[in-house]
Amino acid sequence: MLQHFFNPSSVAVIGASQNPAKIGYDILNNILQYGYGGTVYPINPKAQEILGHKAYPDLASVPSDIDLAVVAVPATAVMDVLEQCGKKGVDSVIVVTAGFREIGPEGARLENKLAMRARELGIRIVGPNCLGIIDTASALNASFAAGMPLAGHIGFFSQSGALCVAILDWALGENVGFSRFVSLGNKMDISETEIMLSMGQDENTRVILGYLESIEDGPRFMKAAREVSKTKPIIIIKSGTTSAGAKAASSHTGALAGSDHAYRAAFKQSGIIHAESMQALFGYAMAFANQAPPKGPSLAIITNSGGPGILAADACDRSSLHLTPIRRETADRLREFLPPTASVYNPIDIIGDATHERYQKTLAVILNDEFIHAVLILLTPTAAVDAEAVAREIVSLAKDTDKPIMTAFMGGKRVRHARKIFQDHAIPAYDYPEDAVGALDAMLSYRRWREQPERQYRHFDVDTSKVREVFASVVKQHRQDLVESEARQILKAYGFRLPESRIARTTQEAVKMASEIGYPVVMKIASPDVLHKSDMGGVRVGVENEAMAEDAFFHITSNIQLRQPGARILGVMVQEMIPQGREVILGITRDMQFGPIIMFGLGGIYVEVLKDVAFRIAPLSVEEADAMIRDIRSFPLLRGVRGELPADIKGIRDALLRLSQMAIDCPEIVEADVNPLLVCPEGQGAVAVDARITIQE
Amino acid sequence: MLQHFFNPSSVAVIGASQNPAKIGYDILNNILQYGYGGTVYPINPKAQEILGHKAYPDLASVPSDIDLAVVAVPATAVMDVLEQCGKKGVDSVIVVTAGFREIGPEGARLENKLAMRARELGIRIVGPNCLGIIDTASALNASFAAGMPLAGHIGFFSQSGALCVAILDWALGENVGFSRFVSLGNKMDISETEIMLSMGQDENTRVILGYLESIEDGPRFMKAAREVSKTKPIIIIKSGTTSAGAKAASSHTGALAGSDHAYRAAFKQSGIIHAESMQALFGYAMAFANQAPPKGPSLAIITNSGGPGILAADACDRSSLHLTPIRRETADRLREFLPPTASVYNPIDIIGDATHERYQKTLAVILNDEFIHAVLILLTPTAAVDAEAVAREIVSLAKDTDKPIMTAFMGGKRVRHARKIFQDHAIPAYDYPEDAVGALDAMLSYRRWREQPERQYRHFDVDTSKVREVFASVVKQHRQDLVESEARQILKAYGFRLPESRIARTTQEAVKMASEIGYPVVMKIASPDVLHKSDMGGVRVGVENEAMAEDAFFHITSNIQLRQPGARILGVMVQEMIPQGREVILGITRDMQFGPIIMFGLGGIYVEVLKDVAFRIAPLSVEEADAMIRDIRSFPLLRGVRGELPADIKGIRDALLRLSQMAIDCPEIVEADVNPLLVCPEGQGAVAVDARITIQE
Repeated sequence: MLQHFFNPSSVAVIGASQNPAKIGYDILNNILQYGYGGTVYPINPKAQEILGHKAYPDLASVPSDIDLAVVAVPATAVMDVLEQCGKKGVDSVIVVTAGFREIGPEGARLENKLAMRARELGIRIVGPNCLGIIDTASALNASFAAGMPLAGHIGFFSQSGALCVAILDWALGENVGFSRFVSLGNKMDISETEIMLSMGQDENTRVILGYLESIEDGPRFMKAAREVSKTKPIIIIKSGTTSAGAKAASSHTGALAGSDHAYRAAFKQSGIIHAESMQALFGYAMAFANQAPPKGPSLAIITNSGGPGILAADACDRSSLHLTPIRRETADRLREFLPPTASVYNPIDIIGDATHERYQKTLAVILNDEFIHAVLILLTPTAAVDAEAVAREIVSLAKDTDKPIMTAFMGGKRVRHARKIFQDHAIPAYDYPEDAVGALDAMLSYRRWREQPERQYRHFDVDTSKVREVFASVVKQHRQDLVESEARQILKAYGFRLPESRIARTTQEAVKMASEIGYPVVMKIASPDVLHKSDMGGVRVGVENEAMAEDAFFHITSNIQLRQPGARILGVMVQEMIPQGREVILGITRDMQFGPIIMFGLGGIYVEVLKDVAFRIAPLSVEEADAMIRDIRSFPLLRGVRGELPADIKGIRDALLRLSQMAIDCPEIVEADVNPLLVCPEGQGAVAVDARITIQE
Repeated sequence: MLQHFFNPSSVAVIGASQNPAKIGYDILNNILQYGYGGTVYPINPKAQEILGHKAYPDLASVPSDIDLAVVAVPATAVMDVLEQCGKKGVDSVIVVTAGFREIGPEGARLENKLAMRARELGIRIVGPNCLGIIDTASALNASFAAGMPLAGHIGFFSQSGALCVAILDWALGENVGFSRFVSLGNKMDISETEIMLSMGQDENTRVILGYLESIEDGPRFMKAAREVSKTKPIIIIKSGTTSAGAKAASSHTGALAGSDHAYRAAFKQSGIIHAESMQALFGYAMAFANQAPPKGPSLAIITNSGGPGILAADACDRSSLHLTPIRRETADRLREFLPPTASVYNPIDIIGDATHERYQKTLAVILNDEFIHAVLILLTPTAAVDAEAVAREIVSLAKDTDKPIMTAFMGGKRVRHARKIFQDHAIPAYDYPEDAVGALDAMLSYRRWREQPERQYRHFDVDTSKVREVFASVVKQHRQDLVESEARQILKAYGFRLPESRIARTTQEAVKMASEIGYPVVMKIASPDVLHKSDMGGVRVGVENEAMAEDAFFHITSNIQLRQPGARILGVMVQEMIPQGREVILGITRDMQFGPIIMFGLGGIYVEVLKDVAFRIAPLSVEEADAMIRDIRSFPLLRGVRGELPADIKGIRDALLRLSQMAIDCPEIVEADVNPLLVCPEGQGAVAVDARITIQE
């Protein structure tokens, strides 16, 4: 996939230059100097030869086929180059040139034209406004970055060229190896999704890292990530997640950042490891590139000092890892050689006079304990210890285990060489215990993601013609908001359980309907214009007899006439009074990048005041519906507290799945909520009491 | 304060050794080799001379006075040394020897004996089981650490000797300067509090850093921290804050870690900056040691690339800093020289071809804008930029401003020298923008702490004799739990408003009392043995008439007889029915280290299920009471949502302050809660409906 970008047989550099101040020089020089094995054609009408290579005036003059063109000519000349590529049959082009969408409307127009023409010509483009591409396996540095990373197993793509530069420079200093570097630029054609897929297929890439400010096509991205994350971890830092950040991002690339909760849901649902900071991004990358995820949550900590051990234990407690008690058999084996003041609990404190032999023996015993899934080794540079010797012992033992081993040797000068040994032997080395625990925690989540069973979707039979009929009638009346009776029809068509309910146009009708439904009833205004019925005095609950029904009809209609004079009144809805239960809210919103999002929370103040809400992107699998119910802080209330019966969680799950199907089936729904869904005690289901649906104009 | 420990005229090393494998060698060698100007006396009965210095067989043989003794003899010999010190008049002793409290009960006994004897002799002791002390101003390295830090302005104390070693080693690698290093060891005599106070007085120390696993005397520590933090920032990392960590800490030092919420409250109430990780500890230290806190929250970010700018903006949004819009005047001045595609909003993106001149001009304009309080400068190593030149420009401009300037130059090799320039010129340099923002945020909080007005305490008149009388009677009856009527008397004595209430022993009495109080009433069992009255069927609300009162009396008493047969029944309490209001819970608990803690939360599920609780250590100031009310997530409910009236927050504050005074006045109270305190709408006060008080046996 995208083979010509990463492993071309020949590369043309259009705009190659002899002037070291020009980007066209840097690119050609980078391609030539790092050992790329294919043929290179500098293209420049004004030169005979550049950097010792024959230059051609244009693509047509090149005597053989060209797999990849790297374009560094001014923005206005790019279209002409594209035409040349078309004629020459070049199908892969990197446009590093800036001056497109990022500079404003004029640049955007030029970019759109270019994109359209490229599609016609069947040409794939990376960029424009990017740094280029590096592939260490083919020794191709088709970028104007300063330097070439070591070969390694990390694939990195970035929407910020500057971050590529910074990370490349960092990697050179730390001897971190990369398989590929891709600067996405404006993502005119090739986006993060295709790059992610191509790295998924690249055998040199073991872990995929990304920096993103926006995502082009949410559902496609999620589908690809789900597929790729089955075999390779994908770690992404997403910037612009706060309102200040989003504003900065939008003025940077002109891209809409999208809502943070949509991204978080999307990452969760597609197995992406979300790095919350640059620090975490690198920390995770180091772990995933070098070690296999732990088979379970049991972590053993080995330390030669108490303090760092406690810091690690604290970090562990905040993660999903367990600081498992060391079982007796293993403890006994440790006691055979550890001094009496050592602690064989977890953290295992082999105390300040520990030598590399003591580290070696302890680690060997711990690795042999099948109940321990991962080991974190801490060291402070005491007088007794030779940090390098410890590092060598660890490296040696690590060869024969599939348990992840992480290290945090704390200090500076006296642990530097030990860290270097770890780097050279694929043992993750962190500055602080907290970072090591964080990375291990990310690995464990990833393993759990990979091991989870195939996602299950449920399909419900829907009265589709009824749904179409209701929407058609609303559209015909030039409305966007469905009245309650219409919303109820939609919910009914989707199999929601609803309270019995009819619309009365007169007091007499109301009384008749109420007695048919059976007292007590609820009465509500039926009007397309009244959205907040309670606030306007349009609702009466606990109507227990004829007299109360008459009174309610009168007051509800006159309240609305008084408080919202222009409102159209279709009548008063007389509704079955629902049994006691827990009120929850379900909703559909739409995200620019990810489409329909399902939200869930407890009714009343929980959603509105405490912002205790869970989000997932539709369609929901059964597991995702369950997970989002458990996600809210107030979940214990659903399980029942203070002797209450547990609520019918399956009923909520069923409603969430039906709503998810509705969101997917009906793209015209802009916003919808079921508020409240009344959840009865376990086994008794849930009833949709009220609903609002808004469709597109 | 503690002058002989940090700036002694003469030091004796007891247990000084010629053998480089011994700690007694390391200590003497450290004192001699780093330029300490005082007299040094090696004490060793078996040697004539050590490291070129005449050795003495014992302290008595030393011809002149000794200010400080450093002891490195075996644990069993320390007592004898102490006696020698007493005779010689040495008042300051560092015991590095291990083998005391940390090894178990036997060691603890030895340590206690030592402590007692030292007190008798008037000798102050640092340690035992510590690394020693370093003071760079007096060039004294009275420790067995490997190396001597550069002179600087950071004072560091640590309960973990190993962390001292690691940090010292790190500091040597990074050229970070320290004023003092103190390894606290077992804190037999001198604790963190005295070290903190001494660093507060030390003119070379500008910022105080600490690593703690436990605190010896909470209230004293808080008092000292409050005093010191008025002039110097105190940054502390506290380990053992989780249950796993606490377990590890307790097996490490034998110290009780204390509860996390008590520490958090104590730090908040005494102006301590709480570092949540080692990373944060160092990051904050770098900022505070070198820059003044910002005068306000307005931060400007200058960057040569979008991505890092967005990451910084995100971090800013999560902090209390504001990414203030650049006002027109300043923006216009920037536009004069910035290219058109640069962004003069905030972050100010001076784009990828920015040179050091552009950085210089931009920073100069920004520093001139009086509405900007702090600047963060980001750089990625593009081809156009000379990072070192930018660093020099920043250093030069920083000389003439009192605004804090932070930097995050991202990358490795190509920014290394720039970072070195920053280190040499007291400009904080971070790896990532997030860390820089975090440190600036900590500085802003510290400034706000320093600027807050003097704490105000309120004193209430209390019917002390009534309180004593009630407690005496409870003690006499060998009870710990007060019955409700007793608890009510205590609350009443403390000026809480209570519902009118009496105890009826017969149905007739109940009916009479109810009619006197006025229907509706609440009826509750009065028993010292029934703690959860509602759960046992011991409460009836909404008793509206004589018949209901009779019925309630019968059912309440028979419920309790049935469900808790042995319970002593004093009667049934007949109580005024309280008006509608918001239920909140106040409580007193006791922490081993900090004493009485006041807790606050909303009633019902908020405390129990959602764990939405605020804690503060008593006594509460008026501001602290206000702050803890605002601290809970559900605070908006008190302000009123959905058209509800706001609750009487002043009423809650008043109750919290009364409870705080009770907690301080009555040390016999082990636990108490007012549950619920019914808070009426604003201006109408709050009523203590029910209360539980437990006192010591």
